[in-house]
Amino acid sequence: MSEFSIIEHYFKTITSSHLSTVYGIGDDCAISDIPAQQQLVSCVDTLVAGRHFPMDTSAHAIAWRSVAVNLSDLAAMGAKPYAILLALSLPHVDESWLAEFSRGLSDICQQYHLDLIGGDTTQSPTLTISVTALGFVPRGNFITRRGAMVDDLICVSGHIGDASLALADVLQNKSSPLQMALDYPQPQTGLGQNLIHFASSMIDISDGLAQDLGHILAQSHVGARIDIENIPCSSYLQQLPLTQRIKHQLTGGDDYQLCFTIRPDLYQQFCQQYHLTPAIIGKITAEPNLQIYYQDQLQQINTKGYQHFAT
Amino acid sequence: MSEFSIIEHYFKTITSSHLSTVYGIGDDCAISDIPAQQQLVSCVDTLVAGRHFPMDTSAHAIAWRSVAVNLSDLAAMGAKPYAILLALSLPHVDESWLAEFSRGLSDICQQYHLDLIGGDTTQSPTLTISVTALGFVPRGNFITRRGAMVDDLICVSGHIGDASLALADVLQNKSSPLQMALDYPQPQTGLGQNLIHFASSMIDISDGLAQDLGHILAQSHVGARIDIENIPCSSYLQQLPLTQRIKHQLTGGDDYQLCFTIRPDLYQQFCQQYHLTPAIIGKITAEPNLQIYYQDQLQQINTKGYQHFAT
Repeated sequence: MSEFSIIEHYFKTITSSHLSTVYGIGDDCAISDIPAQQQLVSCVDTLVAGRHFPMDTSAHAIAWRSVAVNLSDLAAMGAKPYAILLALSLPHVDESWLAEFSRGLSDICQQYHLDLIGGDTTQSPTLTISVTALGFVPRGNFITRRGAMVDDLICVSGHIGDASLALADVLQNKSSPLQMALDYPQPQTGLGQNLIHFASSMIDISDGLAQDLGHILAQSHVGARIDIENIPCSSYLQQLPLTQRIKHQLTGGDDYQLCFTIRPDLYQQFCQQYHLTPAIIGKITAEPNLQIYYQDQLQQINTKGYQHFAT
Repeated sequence: MSEFSIIEHYFKTITSSHLSTVYGIGDDCAISDIPAQQQLVSCVDTLVAGRHFPMDTSAHAIAWRSVAVNLSDLAAMGAKPYAILLALSLPHVDESWLAEFSRGLSDICQQYHLDLIGGDTTQSPTLTISVTALGFVPRGNFITRRGAMVDDLICVSGHIGDASLALADVLQNKSSPLQMALDYPQPQTGLGQNLIHFASSMIDISDGLAQDLGHILAQSHVGARIDIENIPCSSYLQQLPLTQRIKHQLTGGDDYQLCFTIRPDLYQQFCQQYHLTPAIIGKITAEPNLQIYYQDQLQQINTKGYQHFAT
């Protein structure tokens, strides 16, 4: 089967339904209209088999995840998802795998109202999926990592540590009740957009809460205090000994929740407006480091998260 | 060296000088302004070591090529290049390789006034470079593969077959005077933009002239006659026996020249306006197939070009 028939057969069925898509897959490039008063938001993330997901992960989950990690980056800027371009490198053409992959892609595209507007399929010894995501944000209203101010609250959007614990289970060949958290991350794109005009800085948690919050602190030139007992925790993770729980929550990656900072008065306003109460896990401090407390006691914890080229 | 220091060190020096770049590398996403009355043009292409370039290709040439193949796609729509996002998967961190790769990237970004606005660096057993390119085109004036009309002229933008011959030399461990054509393709972005309002259809020649022209014919529901002796040919390729020359010119890939169709009167107008005379290699016919002539004799030639998953 040639590249062309693969693309035709498996990917052309993913509809281009977005009004912005003038010309979708099937030519040298796609053509898109950017809505008036919006800016383009773009990012790219790659998944490599055996490194970013276990080799026996289902093709459906791989497809979901490869898009989800990018949507999570869009969410962290406050952007509304628009479309993806897919670069898929495959060891060989396995039609049942491709059908499953295509179904996963289609499912997440439908759920987040995303168009697939470009693709390239190549042969490679290593299964590699690289997705570029495009989104839109109202002009000038994107949220960066730079705006955290002293006394801002630090919030997260949901349970932290579940995906990390699930991965630990999988690596020990145990089935995990948290498997879904690992395989099907749910990017917080709705919350991200709602936080425009509220959050002072934002990041998504992909490499571990401590490391990712660390980027906000470094780029905002501030420090933080967080209180471990305030980090939202699933009941399964809660059963673990405290040191293990802390490890998963502070240094485990793959949660794809949002971590953001917000002025206390805006937090109140946000909660009232959206009927949500994001978990407050700490606050921004003037001292430029991350202090971790448990029951009001300062802890000494190695908070190094996922390193892409650990040496 | 962690992913973050790699990106910081080697890629952040590639300047974001484009007015459209509001926020470049260094956050979850980039933010871009689309110029008024322009549409966004996007594409993605992946290079896999040992498949899309010989394993001993210099890192500088790999970087150049990984961007060039995408610029060529932009050129084929008539788009002006704007920016790239880079997904780089590396077996290990080799600092001298990265320095060379970064220099190649920087060189092509400067030559084509391109910003590097996003990146992801991952570890993988297989060196894989996936580039997403973004460009702009005046609203509604992009050129597709669909508009070829009967009696339109078929033109190409330069020598065809050189890269294919160079690759054949390399695969036989011979040095080739055409090595530059293979390693440093020159995407025809200027010509592509000039052809707006002139060309009726356009494609870039990446998989072989016959196959790529075939896409225009299929999508325009027309056929073509081309005359082999009119295909621009370098003096080195000219020395080959005719059958070999034809093979390289019709089915060899990697030239990244443009192939376009144009009404005869518009061709005259174009030549006068731009003081250029693109080579005319044939014309569009009503019969829906590709007929290849040599010295006015119809030839029987297998015109199958590069197949990504030849089986």
